[in-house]
Amino acid sequence: MEALARRSLKMCPFLRRTVPATLRSLSTSPSGHRASSSLQAIASRCPVMNKAMAVQSARVGRRLSGHRGNQARSHATLAPSYPGIDSGGPFDYKGFYQAALDAKHKDKSYRYFNNINRLAREFPRAHMDAPDDKRVTVWCSNDYLGMSKNPHVLQKMHETLDMYGAGAGGTRNISGHNQHAVELEATLARLHRKEAALVFSSCYVANDATLATLGSKLPDCVILSDSSNHASMIQGIRHSGARKMVFRHNDLDDLEAKLASLPLHTPKIIAFESVYSMCGSIGPIRQICDLADRYGAITFLDEVHAVGMYGPHGAGVAEHLDYDIHAMGHSESASGQKTVMDRVDIITGTLGKAYGCVGGYIAGSAKMVDTIRSLAPGFIFTTSLPPATMAGATVSVEYQMSHNADRILQQLHTRTTKAALQDIGIPVIPNPSHIIPVLVGNAEVAKKASDMLLKDWGIYVQAINYPTVAVGEERLRITPTPGHGQEFRQHLLTALEAVWTELGIRRAETWGGFLGVGQQHPGNEPLWTDAQLGLTTDAIDLDAFAPEKVAGVAAGC
Amino acid sequence: MEALARRSLKMCPFLRRTVPATLRSLSTSPSGHRASSSLQAIASRCPVMNKAMAVQSARVGRRLSGHRGNQARSHATLAPSYPGIDSGGPFDYKGFYQAALDAKHKDKSYRYFNNINRLAREFPRAHMDAPDDKRVTVWCSNDYLGMSKNPHVLQKMHETLDMYGAGAGGTRNISGHNQHAVELEATLARLHRKEAALVFSSCYVANDATLATLGSKLPDCVILSDSSNHASMIQGIRHSGARKMVFRHNDLDDLEAKLASLPLHTPKIIAFESVYSMCGSIGPIRQICDLADRYGAITFLDEVHAVGMYGPHGAGVAEHLDYDIHAMGHSESASGQKTVMDRVDIITGTLGKAYGCVGGYIAGSAKMVDTIRSLAPGFIFTTSLPPATMAGATVSVEYQMSHNADRILQQLHTRTTKAALQDIGIPVIPNPSHIIPVLVGNAEVAKKASDMLLKDWGIYVQAINYPTVAVGEERLRITPTPGHGQEFRQHLLTALEAVWTELGIRRAETWGGFLGVGQQHPGNEPLWTDAQLGLTTDAIDLDAFAPEKVAGVAAGC
Repeated sequence: MEALARRSLKMCPFLRRTVPATLRSLSTSPSGHRASSSLQAIASRCPVMNKAMAVQSARVGRRLSGHRGNQARSHATLAPSYPGIDSGGPFDYKGFYQAALDAKHKDKSYRYFNNINRLAREFPRAHMDAPDDKRVTVWCSNDYLGMSKNPHVLQKMHETLDMYGAGAGGTRNISGHNQHAVELEATLARLHRKEAALVFSSCYVANDATLATLGSKLPDCVILSDSSNHASMIQGIRHSGARKMVFRHNDLDDLEAKLASLPLHTPKIIAFESVYSMCGSIGPIRQICDLADRYGAITFLDEVHAVGMYGPHGAGVAEHLDYDIHAMGHSESASGQKTVMDRVDIITGTLGKAYGCVGGYIAGSAKMVDTIRSLAPGFIFTTSLPPATMAGATVSVEYQMSHNADRILQQLHTRTTKAALQDIGIPVIPNPSHIIPVLVGNAEVAKKASDMLLKDWGIYVQAINYPTVAVGEERLRITPTPGHGQEFRQHLLTALEAVWTELGIRRAETWGGFLGVGQQHPGNEPLWTDAQLGLTTDAIDLDAFAPEKVAGVAAGC
Repeated sequence: MEALARRSLKMCPFLRRTVPATLRSLSTSPSGHRASSSLQAIASRCPVMNKAMAVQSARVGRRLSGHRGNQARSHATLAPSYPGIDSGGPFDYKGFYQAALDAKHKDKSYRYFNNINRLAREFPRAHMDAPDDKRVTVWCSNDYLGMSKNPHVLQKMHETLDMYGAGAGGTRNISGHNQHAVELEATLARLHRKEAALVFSSCYVANDATLATLGSKLPDCVILSDSSNHASMIQGIRHSGARKMVFRHNDLDDLEAKLASLPLHTPKIIAFESVYSMCGSIGPIRQICDLADRYGAITFLDEVHAVGMYGPHGAGVAEHLDYDIHAMGHSESASGQKTVMDRVDIITGTLGKAYGCVGGYIAGSAKMVDTIRSLAPGFIFTTSLPPATMAGATVSVEYQMSHNADRILQQLHTRTTKAALQDIGIPVIPNPSHIIPVLVGNAEVAKKASDMLLKDWGIYVQAINYPTVAVGEERLRITPTPGHGQEFRQHLLTALEAVWTELGIRRAETWGGFLGVGQQHPGNEPLWTDAQLGLTTDAIDLDAFAPEKVAGVAAGC
């Protein structure tokens, strides 16, 4: 088992960044579990090591069970026992499930779902189990703009439900293709200024299916993947069977070194995100496009947390980088240069976050989209989204293409909330986006804080623990919306202050700059500039941006 | 290239079942494409060979391009050219997409989607591109019971939309868990008499995520997979990385031989379906449960095309096999034996076919479901289904749990349509289920027949071509619903007769029993018996089952 751990040193980021003395200490200290070290307990959280250990334990168990002497049994006892294996009988599936769940409980990564029912007419409030329960305020939804309750969206969905029914009734090829799909895909292509778009059940499926298809079909393809990429991209790359090269998060030098190590003619996909949802960092899209051009790669950009939220039409960060050009409806710069959005080969997005519905999509060249449409099993062999979902999503995208106010108000609420949290020493991981990650640094404490906020304060902010973030980087992830005005904000601040004090959670100044907490860095300036937000003085007067006073927001919120 | 083909002989079902003389002929006959044989053209349709050939071509191309003489160029010309590779520059992505699409066009597997808008108030009719277009009758939808227009379902969806909005706003863990998910999963668990259920974006995702998770986590797991399994299961097995053993479709001897070849203690999953959607055959569930017990395997049963359609509560074929026990609400036989449904370990189903909505699920033991909930990325990292979708699906499942009339009427329409088609010599592939596969046997002709039915007769039946079915087994797949009464049926028969004559498509008697066409086989007796359908005489009086005369159907249709 220890040999296995040593062999992993070369590939494991945890082992690499932990000093040898700590590793030695962990590998000899008991974990509280009979005959396994703390290092093994940590390793059991790792998707690679966990399986490797299970397989090894099973093998050891089988090998040893061939002997019947006392010595063999005593060896078997010393080796971590694996519940599923008993060579005297069939595999113990129940024991396997129990062990898998025990491991989740033990490392505090077991998830308890909160029953939260977001009320369209009381946004951003929700009720818990029953409609009569007391209201809670939701501060962690990805319905960033409140579009799930936009009256235009709901109206269109009601009409479509009545006229076309609940479900599509088939795959896109077999009776599930309709005007709603045609219109939605045309709208998405227009949004991103691409030739075509293709809608999937979710953006998880869109990312998985597209990367798996391209990576497996392009001969000898190499996929270069940002180390912070979403699970859906990681799965898509794995499923492609293509060679993967992981570059350090947002590290252009590392990416370039890896690109340069490959022959120019080798097909390469650079897969990355615009807004990374758990830390709020933003990918250097323009520079990655430059590298792609230089080294013969194509770019695959996940704008899931950015669509609706950035750019004059809500097309995402790629659009935002050429804000004025797109705001004026131009297709290139004054000097005739292509926009960043035009340069990105494949953009993926969701209809389930800022657009308030469900579903995902890709946008790009007509031939690329047609290739994925023709080859990707995850697109071909599944029932289409319901007509009402597609029609509602179309209205939502179109609404946000012509209304800037929701995202501006959201940005103003984000700025003000971040500033207020910093004022009272709550540790915010700094970033240029609309995400407010509040560092806790411990899974158990993060859950306690979340539970206390819900129970004592009627505030719902889910704790984000491993594996969504690394161990030691557990956090509360706060996402203001245009509906989270001053009253809600003040309540949040009071509650966080009280919970931080009661649980003795570390304040910003004690983190010593870990994850950038408490530090200033020019890269963390908000992507939305003061001018883009219409701010002319340093003092932000949020009252001027109250929903009822901003044109277009009234309908949206 | 030919060596590659020879090496594939061991693993390729096409090569194995084709006689050597035919293979020789194919490998020397030109395909119409410069310098490639018919065998290569066929191989280009195969997902394994296609990639292998592309890689090999690319390698040959690169190796040859190292030489600059005329001879090398002439060799390069003789080798099938691969458009993406030009070692003088970056990879030609556009050329790659074009080549992929050209291959689809060439082998007639390129899909043209028909724009079909099913009208809830005119079921089973639809309009084409625009609402004012002439109506067509949809004869190929998987909305088998017309539940997409069920007024109870729609009413609940309208109410939920108004109260809870369009989208869930998050993953199940982060603000996307709500009463609608809780109620839907409780209803599904109750439907299948299991401890728990878990809802996914689709059953494609449910199958993929569950098999990938179990297959990768169970140590040294082997998955035994029916050769006709759906793409979602095939992908899930592939993604698991587990060893796969494919057994011949519904062949218990072959399955048992494979199970017996494995150690008893090795974890094994038998993955299969109840109703196979493209041929309508039904899996021997009871006998597979027996084998699972004997050899220490668990059973993974896809009931996607059966839920809502079989059993006294619509729980599927597994429920149907103990019809009377379940109809009486008992949990075991009079002699104390467990029911087949209770014996199946994992049942997967869809909310997007007979239940008329969208989404998929698994049902099984609480520990198994909790394990998948805790470990499967395809469940964890994706936005929940919208509240209205889950609420509507719950009503649909509950409605079908307490109303038998829709599925009975559907079965009666299936019987009558099959009998009438046989009477006029249209080749129906016989089976015991509600699917009516009409054999054409040629991709181009199948598409022509489908186009002609739509254009000349206002009947929409999609042609089913490779890769959904094998080359040479192309078909029209007809699915009657409770709404397809006598008038629609007569129109369909007239149209098919005319199209078969005009295109000179082979009649039943000319197929010589291929795929069982024209043959009687006891295994193809309808699963729904006369007694279960309430038929007391040989003559079926469908008028007695007209929607308005059957209790419960009026609301449903």
